[in-house]
Amino acid sequence: MNRETSASLARLPLSLCAVVALAGCYAPHTATPAAAVTEESHAGPFAAGKSLSFDATLKPIDPDPVKEIQIDASNKVIDLAPGVKYSAWTLGDQVPGPTVRVRVGDKIRFSMTNRTDESMPGMLRIGAPMMHSMDFHSAMGSPQSMFHSIRPRQTISFEFVPTYPGVFMYHCVTPPMVEHIASGMYGMMVVEPKAGFPTKVDREYTIVQSEFYAKLDPERRRIDNVPVYVLNGEKAMARSPSHVVFNGRFNGMVDRPLFAKPGERIRLYVLNVGPGSTSSFHVVGTVFDTVWLEGNPRNELHGLQTVLLGASSGAIVEFVIPENGDYIMVDHHFANAALGAVGVISTSTAGATPPSGAAPWDAARRSASLDADAIAGKATFETRCSVCHSVGGGDKIGPDLRGATQRRADTWLTSWLLDTDKMQKSDATGKDLLAKYKVPMPNPGLKRAEAQQILKYLHWSDERGKP
Amino acid sequence: MNRETSASLARLPLSLCAVVALAGCYAPHTATPAAAVTEESHAGPFAAGKSLSFDATLKPIDPDPVKEIQIDASNKVIDLAPGVKYSAWTLGDQVPGPTVRVRVGDKIRFSMTNRTDESMPGMLRIGAPMMHSMDFHSAMGSPQSMFHSIRPRQTISFEFVPTYPGVFMYHCVTPPMVEHIASGMYGMMVVEPKAGFPTKVDREYTIVQSEFYAKLDPERRRIDNVPVYVLNGEKAMARSPSHVVFNGRFNGMVDRPLFAKPGERIRLYVLNVGPGSTSSFHVVGTVFDTVWLEGNPRNELHGLQTVLLGASSGAIVEFVIPENGDYIMVDHHFANAALGAVGVISTSTAGATPPSGAAPWDAARRSASLDADAIAGKATFETRCSVCHSVGGGDKIGPDLRGATQRRADTWLTSWLLDTDKMQKSDATGKDLLAKYKVPMPNPGLKRAEAQQILKYLHWSDERGKP
Amino acid sequence: MNRETSASLARLPLSLCAVVALAGCYAPHTATPAAAVTEESHAGPFAAGKSLSFDATLKPIDPDPVKEIQIDASNKVIDLAPGVKYSAWTLGDQVPGPTVRVRVGDKIRFSMTNRTDESMPGMLRIGAPMMHSMDFHSAMGSPQSMFHSIRPRQTISFEFVPTYPGVFMYHCVTPPMVEHIASGMYGMMVVEPKAGFPTKVDREYTIVQSEFYAKLDPERRRIDNVPVYVLNGEKAMARSPSHVVFNGRFNGMVDRPLFAKPGERIRLYVLNVGPGSTSSFHVVGTVFDTVWLEGNPRNELHGLQTVLLGASSGAIVEFVIPENGDYIMVDHHFANAALGAVGVISTSTAGATPPSGAAPWDAARRSASLDADAIAGKATFETRCSVCHSVGGGDKIGPDLRGATQRRADTWLTSWLLDTDKMQKSDATGKDLLAKYKVPMPNPGLKRAEAQQILKYLHWSDERGKP
Repeated sequence: MNRETSASLARLPLSLCAVVALAGCYAPHTATPAAAVTEESHAGPFAAGKSLSFDATLKPIDPDPVKEIQIDASNKVIDLAPGVKYSAWTLGDQVPGPTVRVRVGDKIRFSMTNRTDESMPGMLRIGAPMMHSMDFHSAMGSPQSMFHSIRPRQTISFEFVPTYPGVFMYHCVTPPMVEHIASGMYGMMVVEPKAGFPTKVDREYTIVQSEFYAKLDPERRRIDNVPVYVLNGEKAMARSPSHVVFNGRFNGMVDRPLFAKPGERIRLYVLNVGPGSTSSFHVVGTVFDTVWLEGNPRNELHGLQTVLLGASSGAIVEFVIPENGDYIMVDHHFANAALGAVGVISTSTAGATPPSGAAPWDAARRSASLDADAIAGKATFETRCSVCHSVGGGDKIGPDLRGATQRRADTWLTSWLLDTDKMQKSDATGKDLLAKYKVPMPNPGLKRAEAQQILKYLHWSDERGKP
Repeated sequence: MNRETSASLARLPLSLCAVVALAGCYAPHTATPAAAVTEESHAGPFAAGKSLSFDATLKPIDPDPVKEIQIDASNKVIDLAPGVKYSAWTLGDQVPGPTVRVRVGDKIRFSMTNRTDESMPGMLRIGAPMMHSMDFHSAMGSPQSMFHSIRPRQTISFEFVPTYPGVFMYHCVTPPMVEHIASGMYGMMVVEPKAGFPTKVDREYTIVQSEFYAKLDPERRRIDNVPVYVLNGEKAMARSPSHVVFNGRFNGMVDRPLFAKPGERIRLYVLNVGPGSTSSFHVVGTVFDTVWLEGNPRNELHGLQTVLLGASSGAIVEFVIPENGDYIMVDHHFANAALGAVGVISTSTAGATPPSGAAPWDAARRSASLDADAIAGKATFETRCSVCHSVGGGDKIGPDLRGATQRRADTWLTSWLLDTDKMQKSDATGKDLLAKYKVPMPNPGLKRAEAQQILKYLHWSDERGKP
Repeated sequence: MNRETSASLARLPLSLCAVVALAGCYAPHTATPAAAVTEESHAGPFAAGKSLSFDATLKPIDPDPVKEIQIDASNKVIDLAPGVKYSAWTLGDQVPGPTVRVRVGDKIRFSMTNRTDESMPGMLRIGAPMMHSMDFHSAMGSPQSMFHSIRPRQTISFEFVPTYPGVFMYHCVTPPMVEHIASGMYGMMVVEPKAGFPTKVDREYTIVQSEFYAKLDPERRRIDNVPVYVLNGEKAMARSPSHVVFNGRFNGMVDRPLFAKPGERIRLYVLNVGPGSTSSFHVVGTVFDTVWLEGNPRNELHGLQTVLLGASSGAIVEFVIPENGDYIMVDHHFANAALGAVGVISTSTAGATPPSGAAPWDAARRSASLDADAIAGKATFETRCSVCHSVGGGDKIGPDLRGATQRRADTWLTSWLLDTDKMQKSDATGKDLLAKYKVPMPNPGLKRAEAQQILKYLHWSDERGKP
């Protein structure tokens, strides 16, 4: 932990005045005037402010000590995963909301309109109008004043001055909180120390890990012929997510990796939103040189392979990119990684290089615009089959399946997938395959529907060429 | 982390003698004489000792360096939540057991009678007589001697000298441990440094988070016409709690908030008992100025929004109450908060002020003596309906439901709750309501029994006036 | 946290060169030449190297600054728990793989053959040949180069130089990762600081906690008449383990405790593999004097009752054995302890002494070679019955059950176990027992199959003498 003189001060008996003096910026009754709620509404963009960053690349700090911030509540259908359109509730019309970057002592002038009743041409908003609110973890003050819920068409405004540096969560705090968080209403605020962070880095990125609990819309709505998913409240209470994601998307940053050059020092601002589970954040191929718990340089740890974050805990991790390569970020609770908590930092400007062998993110990184069944089949293939088979990449333990739908009838392929053992014993082609590849294929344990989805994927692949 | 000379000592090669000298109070073979087990029994109160505190307010330290402590094992039916009487096993006849406050170097003289066979007039004790034991995490010594299990009517006595400052768990360690903990047998011991804690605070409170796994008593016993719940062992093994509570009660300290004045510095002693899950302890509206992991000032962190605690981990967190308000304590694993891990620190002597908008603890804080169905209906209403409707608080997105049971027949209300979509399309009153309030009411997805419970609650409310 | 001059260096603006100079041993492009993959294979032992330890006792460091290490991938059926033979995938033909002990700055020369296609006389290998890889968390370099997957019969070789001291995980990183980890492919590497650890201890042990998700082999294979278990992939995704173990075995180190003398200072190297859950590592009867998070002395904490570890987090914990006794190591998430995360450090050379009262590990420590039903019955007995009954240990709350199968008919015993309440009211013997023991026996809530298994256990016990 990094402590200098302030640490010994912290150990002295403290009156409130001393605390205020120490923080250098905090005067409770004047600095946090009551929030104002009006019946006026923002129009136009759902988020605005020079201190906002809208993706993983964190912009440099805006030098103005007054930070005007607008982040509105909205409903939006987001692309959570291939084939999964999710009916989200948002702050700033994206999940996670924009990252806010400020400094200790800045004055934050925040306003939010509840625009969950808006429906606009060309944008599908299927969520219900609902009360919402905003809770900045970096703010100190009365929750009843600042974090007050507002109705659709109302606007809440308040000011505050962040006292502590760190990586803080913001979120809607209207009950039932588990639903508002699980639906997507959260984001990150980075608060720099007054003098900036004590280390110098080459690149800064933000990673927000969060869970989704998606179920097919009971009303069976579809967008662009893709089914819509909605919150499964029971799974949220059971803490059994359907997706765990970085920056709002299944396998976030696998398709579009974060860039870095060999030898560069990287700073990641990491926030675990939860709401159900801890994150064991890890980057394959490197060790965290410096970790600041909650993003506060006074809480310094060294040489970590993994940083454990509870729900609404943050950290800054810094490390060096040792050489050319694709460095995979994961939640080392691997069930979460399998549900989508994967990303890549790549030294290739063309994006992550497919490795010659099977690698963790390979199965996930190829995006494709195929139909929903083929997408599901592709996912099943990559989970269950890709260890032994490629599609167009040559033989592995079993044959390359490129052209399989041309070599064999669908009925034969279906039987092979479902009655694998029998086919290898009694079917002539099956026996030939076993003789050629030596290793018996284990029954992949597929349901009939899954087998048919895999066939759709193989047909798609054979029609289009290399996947 | 706070280290001075002792830290460099800790880095030196240490013989046991050096450890003893360093600790200043520890001499294993003389300081921890074997526990004595007798066939005598305590009578009268189930817990006694000047160093004990029986609720969240922590009493100042008793100056006597010898601490006589009696904490007996008992069975007791506790009020876990509105309408939920739980058949608990206890230490000290309450859950959690009384908090023990001592100093490093004090001599603890502990004794416990196993009184799980007692049944007394006017007190319902439905648990079975059973062997129990006591394990103080603050004690060092042979588990076989100190933490020995005793039968009903036996008394165990032992002495020890705490060596390390901190927030320590005590609990019954008789197997199967998961059942004894899940049934309620635990409490907190606060061990102060020899010279006291290095900061000065205005108020001190204790928060014990723990999980319950309740199922309806298969024997269908009732007390005061309220059903009794017992341990669901399978859910305990699956780590799927029915309730997660602060200080032994669902929404603990929401009805009776902890008091503080604006500007005061608060110290919370927090212990996560588990036994299944971590806690992400957070207080809405403030930031933890100082955190001592395990309650040891040498493990100091700064500026935390949340502190992550594993099962049987403790922490001291200190923060300032910035202004008038109700500061909500939660486990930010929000499913746990929804299961009851919520409390309030309020600057109002009258208790927490209901906020004008919906706020996290509002749904939970109004206690009421209504029948079990109406209680259930009230809970359902507050979860599913209160975002859009109040009862006597005026229109929100939908109408105020005060008087609804007088305006409409129960059959109509039931149809409305269950066939919401159809009623808005085809029923005359339904169409009028839609025309008036514009926003269609979404089907709340209630089961018939839940709809009837909500009706009971609305009837109760209309009969009594303002809820 | 232990920081000296290097901490202030870490706070300076750093170019990569400075990092390299600071680390003293790291030169990315020369120190990590690309991995070589050949078609040659290792034969003979599956693991070799002077720096390897094969059980919980950690060997002193090998002074050679070049560490040659061979750890091959293999399939092996392991004894996961009494009556549970598990079809594991391994690194080094054991679970966990051998512990590697090295120093910061050493050159690690690693090679691994994928030998998952081997079947040898006398060794049952029922897992399928499959691609595998090796990821050392202590290594920095391109994952695509070093952690490349190889086919059966291929050998991968690479070199690296560990930069940070600590307790690091190594594991197979071939997708789907959750399956490879859940199947057993992991181990620990201890990296000492250049000058060694700053404290001196009397004994050093390693503890690897990991989860298994076992289901009966759908093909119903048996070995030595014991059923074989295989991975339950759905449970792995749901993070619902069947077993949570220390060092690869249910109740690991309960039968063969780790030895220590009173007054000795013990250092445990603890790694939580997961992959699903955190560990709240605790030792009953002592307090951790010193804890180094991730095993790095710069991350120092003091006086912990419990250390919380995420998936792939490590720690070094040091403590003193205060007096003669058996000190029980557990995951204080007690459901995990009940699933097998228990071990003992004992001052008795004869192994842990059975305590006179019921103690946490007593139920588990008696190993036995009985048939599968009796084993299951024994486990049920010890969970459900042993608080009130012993078998050959004398009366407790209820009678000693030694000889019960000789005193009563199986039909009577079965009725007693299933219709306990009725038998105590209406059966003559039942009424006599109630009159004699006073305390009514609660219905143990057994299924018929469980009751029959308990009978099998009691018969086995009566046939063999003392269990």
